[in-house]
Amino acid sequence: MNAAVQELLATLGPDLVKVGDDIPQRNWADQVGLEPQRPLALLLPRSTDDVSKALAICHRHRQPVVTQGGMTGLAGGAHPGEGEVALSLERMNGIEEVDAASGTLTALAGTPLYLIQRAAEEAGLMCGIDLGARGSCTIGGNVSTNAGGNQVLRYGMARKNVLGLEVVLSDGRVVRSLNKMMKNNAGYDWTQMFIGSEGTLGVVTRVVLSLHARPRNIQTAVLAVKDVSDAIKVLRAAEKALPGGLLVFEAMWSEFYGIATTTIGVPAPIERGHDLYLLVEAPTGDAGPEAFENFLGEMYEAGLVRDAVVAKSRAERDKLWALRESVYEYGKHLPKQIGFDVSIPLNRMPEAVAALRRDMPNAVDGVIWVVFGHVADSNLHINAMPPRYTPEAKLKIEKLVYDLTASLGGSVSAEHGIGRMKKPYLSMTRTGPELALMATVKQALDPLGILNPGRVL
Amino acid sequence: MNAAVQELLATLGPDLVKVGDDIPQRNWADQVGLEPQRPLALLLPRSTDDVSKALAICHRHRQPVVTQGGMTGLAGGAHPGEGEVALSLERMNGIEEVDAASGTLTALAGTPLYLIQRAAEEAGLMCGIDLGARGSCTIGGNVSTNAGGNQVLRYGMARKNVLGLEVVLSDGRVVRSLNKMMKNNAGYDWTQMFIGSEGTLGVVTRVVLSLHARPRNIQTAVLAVKDVSDAIKVLRAAEKALPGGLLVFEAMWSEFYGIATTTIGVPAPIERGHDLYLLVEAPTGDAGPEAFENFLGEMYEAGLVRDAVVAKSRAERDKLWALRESVYEYGKHLPKQIGFDVSIPLNRMPEAVAALRRDMPNAVDGVIWVVFGHVADSNLHINAMPPRYTPEAKLKIEKLVYDLTASLGGSVSAEHGIGRMKKPYLSMTRTGPELALMATVKQALDPLGILNPGRVL
Repeated sequence: MNAAVQELLATLGPDLVKVGDDIPQRNWADQVGLEPQRPLALLLPRSTDDVSKALAICHRHRQPVVTQGGMTGLAGGAHPGEGEVALSLERMNGIEEVDAASGTLTALAGTPLYLIQRAAEEAGLMCGIDLGARGSCTIGGNVSTNAGGNQVLRYGMARKNVLGLEVVLSDGRVVRSLNKMMKNNAGYDWTQMFIGSEGTLGVVTRVVLSLHARPRNIQTAVLAVKDVSDAIKVLRAAEKALPGGLLVFEAMWSEFYGIATTTIGVPAPIERGHDLYLLVEAPTGDAGPEAFENFLGEMYEAGLVRDAVVAKSRAERDKLWALRESVYEYGKHLPKQIGFDVSIPLNRMPEAVAALRRDMPNAVDGVIWVVFGHVADSNLHINAMPPRYTPEAKLKIEKLVYDLTASLGGSVSAEHGIGRMKKPYLSMTRTGPELALMATVKQALDPLGILNPGRVL
Repeated sequence: MNAAVQELLATLGPDLVKVGDDIPQRNWADQVGLEPQRPLALLLPRSTDDVSKALAICHRHRQPVVTQGGMTGLAGGAHPGEGEVALSLERMNGIEEVDAASGTLTALAGTPLYLIQRAAEEAGLMCGIDLGARGSCTIGGNVSTNAGGNQVLRYGMARKNVLGLEVVLSDGRVVRSLNKMMKNNAGYDWTQMFIGSEGTLGVVTRVVLSLHARPRNIQTAVLAVKDVSDAIKVLRAAEKALPGGLLVFEAMWSEFYGIATTTIGVPAPIERGHDLYLLVEAPTGDAGPEAFENFLGEMYEAGLVRDAVVAKSRAERDKLWALRESVYEYGKHLPKQIGFDVSIPLNRMPEAVAALRRDMPNAVDGVIWVVFGHVADSNLHINAMPPRYTPEAKLKIEKLVYDLTASLGGSVSAEHGIGRMKKPYLSMTRTGPELALMATVKQALDPLGILNPGRVL
């Protein structure tokens, strides 16, 4: 047993420090399919003070530490590396305050997102962060990765929902600003550095979120449009005509819609054969659905919307959403996928889709592929399913997607982060001076490089 | 002439480097009333490359530099200190691109805010940043100070409107991310460090802003409510009932309303004698004003709104706004003011107002004072006018306001920043570990301390 683990055990005791067979499989791997790796030890702090003591010891021993939340990451950030101690926030789970007057919620970093969403709802408000992994991802992980998800168009990435943080630095020092105020220009907003830096600069232990009013009477529709240029025109028109704009704007190109309504078997609310389908939602408050329906009528008359179906009930809404959610059923019906999470500036998105259609079939013979995504926030998801999943096929498709992304000024990671998996591609989106500046910040905050080493940079 | 100025002149020439009597008064002082100070030299770069060369020279000579934008700051950040070279971005003025499809605008840092607002409007969009100094403040200054203003409730502080930056570091290196995407998690978002750090970490030379749809058909009303608790209830109810929520929520307590409608002479749309008045605006899009009027009716029936007047025309709207803007007329009618820009968590705001009413009259005999502000974003402005403006009176009132702010977990600077003027009070809002962390960042990015020395930290 190495000296760091010995001192951790001696100081924190066997309840907080697990070794050997006492380390559950859960902490050996995240969701990306890397070879599971048992960490040297598993730390299970119950308090910020525990985290502080643990990091002070690791710092003294130059012991690398990987921080773990809900283990739902898609970039390998929380996946243990050889010789790393895992620091799991799972026991630091709890909502400390919902302040309905201030519109804020304070929680420990290990609190699962769905518990935060529920607590906000019980106070008559809502959490602006939502993503598929809500049942197991933690708010600390959401903040550390600057999580995106389904509501970014309206509420922004995780960063825009964070008002305050408590962070433990690499040497164990605790820095706290449990700020509840929208306006606070008293010195540097140091919390920004820890949002989206994927645990490489410090360990987030507490989070203050701003909450939002829950929009009333949400209208849901699926629209068919000619192409992504028209889709963006519809988006801008909606933002002007509807006082609450749009909450949801999910694009599904014809390849995606085709698979959803044939292979997966979701009923087609609009006939196949259009180029692009949009799932949109708009809040209408107490004003009734007329404004939304009038808006769609105007778009139809203007030729921007070719066909539209509006949900008239909860059941109809669920059927429209089943189109978008068909992608979660691919595993049962289709070959193994290579998934992409990229951003493309909206003005280049037509080129991106045209290039994918031109080049994807030539990249790998017989590849099945789809493109879809939130679009309005610049995010495209591309799933490619080669007939045989070989390293060569994977490489060819990755090269196609990332070269295209870089050539259009896009980002190789829209919302999943860099972690370990996208490190080879980071320099396609970031320049040398940017990477040097990131390294300067890393050096200043974690000079020994013990926090999530090998991730991001 | 010192060696740094000599090398600046030799390298950049007399068109870009002014000395002695060639330095206009404009660059000697900002708006806070400090003794004007002629800088050692005035640098007037025309390009990022000029800024880079100038800073490289200053860095080599350890020459302190103060960066200047529109000179409208209220914290002394851009006011030259003895022995400083002034770097004014005034010639780096121009909008480089408005990308309506992406909803973004790219501008040089010295571009005045009103030109950016106008360019956004011409593209059918709007800029989320707006403040009283729009005619002369620059976008570089807005970003560097994380400016607040009139639209924070809806669009957030400047930080939330920035997508990309170009920055020159203290040694002249240029770092650029002219990102146009809402989602981009490719490594650290280093731009966040330069937003709101008041020019102490680098010089912002280019800015990419996200633009917004311009809300159609804005309704304006003045409401009377019992107290700030009821005001917050009205705010939350509006966010639920109205799909677009509120754009404006300006609180004016009775002292403020009294002076506006008597001393300043603005007609009173609602009788005096209520405790708190709210100026609110809501967008109603193409749906018509009924939803807004119904909402006010419901609030009246629920007893939360005691009286209300809705503007029926542009002229009536201007009359309601004249109440809030009466504060800009104080100089003509009232004694010299001591102004405050603090934040108070919303749940402590009732206590803050009660304490001000209890303690302000005792702080200085015969003091006239008002409290007002955006409130929904936690911002309170307090203006105190002692019968005789003495250093003692000023100190007493400052002590009252800042002690109260600190005791309620508030911030000594909501939107104006720290600069030089609020440095003595920074530790009332920030802890030792926070200040140490800020110093670590400063040391990493400006190890020689040449950028805006003595500001913020």
